[in-house]
Amino acid sequence: MSQAHPELGPPPPLPAHCLRITPLGGLGAIGRNMTVYEYEGRLLVVDCGVLFPDVDQPGVDVILPDFSSIADRLDDIEAIVLTHGHEDHIGAVPYLLARKPDIPLVGSQFTLALVEAKLAERRITPYSLTVKEGETERLGPFDCEFFAVNHSIPDAMAVAVRTGAGTVLHTGDFKMDQLPLDGRITDLAGFARLGGEGVDMLLSDSTNAEIPGFVTSEQEIRPVIDGIFRSARGRIIVASFASHVHRVQQVLDSAAEHGRKVTFIGRSMVRNMGIARDLGLLHIQGGLVVSLEEATQLPADEIVFMSTGSQGEPMSALGRMASGDHRHVKIESGDTVVLASSLVPGNETSVYRVINALSRAGATVIHKDVARVHVSGHAPAGELLYLLNVVRPSNFLPIHGEWRHLRAHARLAVESGVPAANVVLCEDGDVVDLIDGRARLVGHTTNRYVYVDGLAVGDIGESLLTERRILGDGGFIAATVVVDSVTGKVVGGPTVSAKGFSEDPAAFDPVIPLITDVLDKAAKDGVSDPHQLQQLVRRSVGRWVNDTYRRRPMIVPNVVEV
Amino acid sequence: MSQAHPELGPPPPLPAHCLRITPLGGLGAIGRNMTVYEYEGRLLVVDCGVLFPDVDQPGVDVILPDFSSIADRLDDIEAIVLTHGHEDHIGAVPYLLARKPDIPLVGSQFTLALVEAKLAERRITPYSLTVKEGETERLGPFDCEFFAVNHSIPDAMAVAVRTGAGTVLHTGDFKMDQLPLDGRITDLAGFARLGGEGVDMLLSDSTNAEIPGFVTSEQEIRPVIDGIFRSARGRIIVASFASHVHRVQQVLDSAAEHGRKVTFIGRSMVRNMGIARDLGLLHIQGGLVVSLEEATQLPADEIVFMSTGSQGEPMSALGRMASGDHRHVKIESGDTVVLASSLVPGNETSVYRVINALSRAGATVIHKDVARVHVSGHAPAGELLYLLNVVRPSNFLPIHGEWRHLRAHARLAVESGVPAANVVLCEDGDVVDLIDGRARLVGHTTNRYVYVDGLAVGDIGESLLTERRILGDGGFIAATVVVDSVTGKVVGGPTVSAKGFSEDPAAFDPVIPLITDVLDKAAKDGVSDPHQLQQLVRRSVGRWVNDTYRRRPMIVPNVVEV
Repeated sequence: MSQAHPELGPPPPLPAHCLRITPLGGLGAIGRNMTVYEYEGRLLVVDCGVLFPDVDQPGVDVILPDFSSIADRLDDIEAIVLTHGHEDHIGAVPYLLARKPDIPLVGSQFTLALVEAKLAERRITPYSLTVKEGETERLGPFDCEFFAVNHSIPDAMAVAVRTGAGTVLHTGDFKMDQLPLDGRITDLAGFARLGGEGVDMLLSDSTNAEIPGFVTSEQEIRPVIDGIFRSARGRIIVASFASHVHRVQQVLDSAAEHGRKVTFIGRSMVRNMGIARDLGLLHIQGGLVVSLEEATQLPADEIVFMSTGSQGEPMSALGRMASGDHRHVKIESGDTVVLASSLVPGNETSVYRVINALSRAGATVIHKDVARVHVSGHAPAGELLYLLNVVRPSNFLPIHGEWRHLRAHARLAVESGVPAANVVLCEDGDVVDLIDGRARLVGHTTNRYVYVDGLAVGDIGESLLTERRILGDGGFIAATVVVDSVTGKVVGGPTVSAKGFSEDPAAFDPVIPLITDVLDKAAKDGVSDPHQLQQLVRRSVGRWVNDTYRRRPMIVPNVVEV
Repeated sequence: MSQAHPELGPPPPLPAHCLRITPLGGLGAIGRNMTVYEYEGRLLVVDCGVLFPDVDQPGVDVILPDFSSIADRLDDIEAIVLTHGHEDHIGAVPYLLARKPDIPLVGSQFTLALVEAKLAERRITPYSLTVKEGETERLGPFDCEFFAVNHSIPDAMAVAVRTGAGTVLHTGDFKMDQLPLDGRITDLAGFARLGGEGVDMLLSDSTNAEIPGFVTSEQEIRPVIDGIFRSARGRIIVASFASHVHRVQQVLDSAAEHGRKVTFIGRSMVRNMGIARDLGLLHIQGGLVVSLEEATQLPADEIVFMSTGSQGEPMSALGRMASGDHRHVKIESGDTVVLASSLVPGNETSVYRVINALSRAGATVIHKDVARVHVSGHAPAGELLYLLNVVRPSNFLPIHGEWRHLRAHARLAVESGVPAANVVLCEDGDVVDLIDGRARLVGHTTNRYVYVDGLAVGDIGESLLTERRILGDGGFIAATVVVDSVTGKVVGGPTVSAKGFSEDPAAFDPVIPLITDVLDKAAKDGVSDPHQLQQLVRRSVGRWVNDTYRRRPMIVPNVVEV
């Protein structure tokens, strides 16, 4: 990532009466949300999530926010406030707590239950403080008030942070379904009250800022699911995000109405629905949910499998069913599969592969392109304007979005009356100071993508990913030559081998004499430095492969001294 | 690709009075459309296109239909009928003509003009026969009648093939815009007449079979474009497919209305619009289109750039503008960019990357998620039912689609009254015989993806792509050991190097002694076979990297004998 404001240097020391805001993630890409608030030398972190890699980040498991600007200030952190339990808001908590396990976590009951389950896998028991909407908590110099917001996971909250330098409203992810399943609407009235008191800065979810209008209510999915249940003759398999409790609730309700039993399949689905039920967020009629063993005894038209795998993950329950590898569920003609989920950008290839494999095996597959079995969890332009108009912030910083979303949200803010000069378009690492009610971009801190690959965190950089892309696109050709370390004479090789380049074992026969010629000439010219020899070999192989194949594999010359 | 009907062996010899139909591409993936008809020992090919690779086919340029089942029968081919000029229908023609340049090409004027421009680049001048809708051509034993169809490119046609064994209607790609820009509607009346005569088999475009309803008319995009033109204050850049003449026409008309001049940018846009204008398919008011040099002299609010790059191609005109690399056009605040195009599945990452880069540079970007600046070129379920109901085919074979599309189209056919037993769900390479008015799947011919990578055609296989995927995800670690070819003793190394694995130069220090240990033990045990030594080295490096990093790079052991 290059910088949008290249003129920005490191930020100045924190001025007096200043609330400093540093987004460490979530701007410029959807994911790894993390914002650091600083006041009087103390820090408050809001969210700490992961970003999932795209095709240009091959082999990467997840991407973390860059903690380097706070790495030596962990003792200054009052708390990490978590707005809700999605991975892009909580997924990096274990990595931050690995550095200092006693930073307190603050969030709603469901959010903390999810993050605690995650931390338990790493044997970390966090210090956590459960808060509810309507409550206020003083966290050092930060006076935090929590507001209910409606999102695609229960128990999501916005947080207002009051300091001596002003009040900030940080929405987290939200939308404004006016008739949500749990009756817990986004607290627009609370925001209006806050707006009346004066909001110096609004940080608001930009994901759907480009999309005009309003999100359809979650409830309107129910008749669609009912219609599918009514016409299905065989088994029904529904996949959704394992944290979308209300989506699952609607499937359970529909199953009950149509005389079917439900079995949860997939580790995170089983775990999360257990948590949701225990917390009273998921309501299960007695006898409705059965074990997989019981389900397999039932007639096909009395079963619903509620499964993970809505994003086409090959190792998920649905992914295994699609590839015929699931131990208990083999897809057959007459099965109906419903992907009641979004299609996260970047997952299209995997999702359609699963849909095609299920179709090929004989299933009828229903997904969001075909029927309204999904609604978004993020407020589009119409709803964002409602928020802007009740809060009437003095300054605005769009968060949670790619550039297209941030730019669109900035336009909405200006249209709603925020002065253009008070709209701060930032990217990760930018530092914004709020002083005397005016927000200004004052600097930029180091911010790079921190890649996790296996056990390695952060020691994979862009040049290494470039190597992977070259290898992935063209494979490599390795040419090995053994030279005498004293005389510099070639005593073995050249041998040429390749991976990902050609299946023809004789493909490299023509290049061997070319390398030999180059080495002979080098010997005549008295060149014996291994590095120079490597360069000569690289060039001769590279030229040959370009002329012969018009391709650019990686060339790996290897001169070994004996 | 594995086979859907694994029980199928090679097809029997062609029976008497049989029309044999072999789809060589276009089934199971959208692309490389090609169908071979055989009657009385003669062949007719309909379409010959390429498939664009997805992320799991790294480094592949395009994928061709598998010609192997007709490779020794090229003299039997009467003609290649091309339904329209899209790459997925004409792109593989140069590869087939490279084998036999005098196979006649049959198609409409615009289709042939596009394929001839393509062949000219390879110095092939084809034998071509221009046909028009309403005309009939006898091509050997195949009596072909051509019908106008409406699609996202002008001059598209369906073809009815009459033989002694029955009549087949092959739609090509189509939709049924009832008020198309050029007034040239899909000839439903002609299809009805043909249906009245009796259609033994229908092969029809399945792309949108999952989507309910009807496509919005192309004309309805115009007011949206007008609205954008009305509110834009600076330059306007519109990107669309370079073959979508009607989309471009609407941009030209809107530009004229709003007092802007238009410049075509991008090689294929300039070329195709030249052809379209010459053929009277694109209407350009005098003085409307100006050169790039003239355009750059005009005020920003009098310019429209009509550009390629709607799929996020990094080397296209728009791609270069987004990355700041375009020689003449630098994106600035106030620019409006319109992607008046589809988003082909698989291109999401590239397209959104371009949109984000343009947004970051200050442009307002409008795309199909945000405003109706695109309509599909393929008939959805509602229109497909119209076709099925007027044609009333005895047998049905859904083509042009992934499994999800083919399955959905098959369901529509059954719902419209085609007996389920007469719906033949095939995949590429399957052989269908039409005898006595009844279609039956009778065999399967070899059909694999033929990959083009640089100058190599077809010598890249699945195992090589697997190697690329492993290399692309994890890089490789190479360990080289030099052994004496007589004594088997290690005389050099081990040296370890890697690409795409770690940026730490000391990363491999710990593994060197492990390899040395293994080799010492091998020497003690009297193991000196290079292949066995390679296996030992591979295993010890692999175990170390898994234990240390939980990663799976490719391990490349290299034992060189001197």
